[in-house]
Amino acid sequence: MRLRNVKNAKEKLESCNLFIANPVDYKEKWSSVFQNDHEIHLEIGMGKGDFLIAMAKAYPNINFIGMEKYESVLVRAIEKISLENIPNLRFMCFDAKNLQDVFYKEISKIYLNFSDPWPKTRHAKRRLTHANFLAIYDNLFQNEKVIVQKTDNIDLFAFSLEQLSLYGYIFKRVSLDLSSLAIPNFKTEYEQKFENLGYKINYVEAYKKI
Amino acid sequence: MRLRNVKNAKEKLESCNLFIANPVDYKEKWSSVFQNDHEIHLEIGMGKGDFLIAMAKAYPNINFIGMEKYESVLVRAIEKISLENIPNLRFMCFDAKNLQDVFYKEISKIYLNFSDPWPKTRHAKRRLTHANFLAIYDNLFQNEKVIVQKTDNIDLFAFSLEQLSLYGYIFKRVSLDLSSLAIPNFKTEYEQKFENLGYKINYVEAYKKI
Repeated sequence: MRLRNVKNAKEKLESCNLFIANPVDYKEKWSSVFQNDHEIHLEIGMGKGDFLIAMAKAYPNINFIGMEKYESVLVRAIEKISLENIPNLRFMCFDAKNLQDVFYKEISKIYLNFSDPWPKTRHAKRRLTHANFLAIYDNLFQNEKVIVQKTDNIDLFAFSLEQLSLYGYIFKRVSLDLSSLAIPNFKTEYEQKFENLGYKINYVEAYKKI
Repeated sequence: MRLRNVKNAKEKLESCNLFIANPVDYKEKWSSVFQNDHEIHLEIGMGKGDFLIAMAKAYPNINFIGMEKYESVLVRAIEKISLENIPNLRFMCFDAKNLQDVFYKEISKIYLNFSDPWPKTRHAKRRLTHANFLAIYDNLFQNEKVIVQKTDNIDLFAFSLEQLSLYGYIFKRVSLDLSSLAIPNFKTEYEQKFENLGYKINYVEAYKKI
């Protein structure tokens, strides 16, 4: 995602009551944040938040946490919902490689939507479905491990299928044209733009018993 | 594949010394056909044979068997090689649903190239990667099970990934654009035509321990 500097991003984020400034403080205590024991779904790389905000509204009995590495991107999501009350939604600014410091056996599902494909082979370890990341995710999951990925990038998708499969994940649902699947689908900003251009979206639901 | 009637197809097939008229006679005896104990690779739905003929020439220490349901298609392959001597190649006219009558623990690898996608849901059981077929293949394999699929059909490919994964196969190599993979690839007639039109070929190498 192209980044634009946003003035006072930090202040803007901290003024939003859905923003968690110090997520590591809540490790093993996330149910206290939401004040219920509903399951928690995590989106890594939430971008401007369209997907997660729509999901949180559609599924009030699931708690959603969106993570984004860049403050200047996250602040766009915050601005969108500044006037809304969505009790089952939280945001954090954090790097996925340190996720084990934030959650322990608390997550039911991870969403990876249009993650950075890192096309160069020497950057493969940065892809969010690299085995090293799958190992980090292992300790986040409460019960069955569930990773749902959407991407327009065919190389990232093929890489993900290989890595997930080798890591023991089973694919219950795969599509190379998400628009043809009869399932509810909340689109990211990026996805909408891509579909309008006639590109196909790849989709996988991967499961692994704990 | 569109079928044209070929006059005297049966006679033409039987006049070729690489054609096996009664494959069930060789169950558990295929090494005697080739007079060696090299591994045997099977292509189900070999069409006009371009892939298998090229493979057999490239890998003389592997035995290749091509199977095709329709005599009128198989006869085209036979005509191509009528003047050539390819000792590690055989053909048969047979239906995949009865494969257990032909092989038992003798096959090292199965190729499924551009199989009929059977797009209607009610025909899903006819797709060559349906779990029912995977169960038939189970008894054909000698050691590790290896299925290699190429297809331009994205729905068949997604279906195959689901079925193979649920059946315990692991994906060592996946591509949604085979032309970008740096591996030897012998093209089928159909594949060449499709690539010329700018379509991408999907590819998977699936493995399962016996």
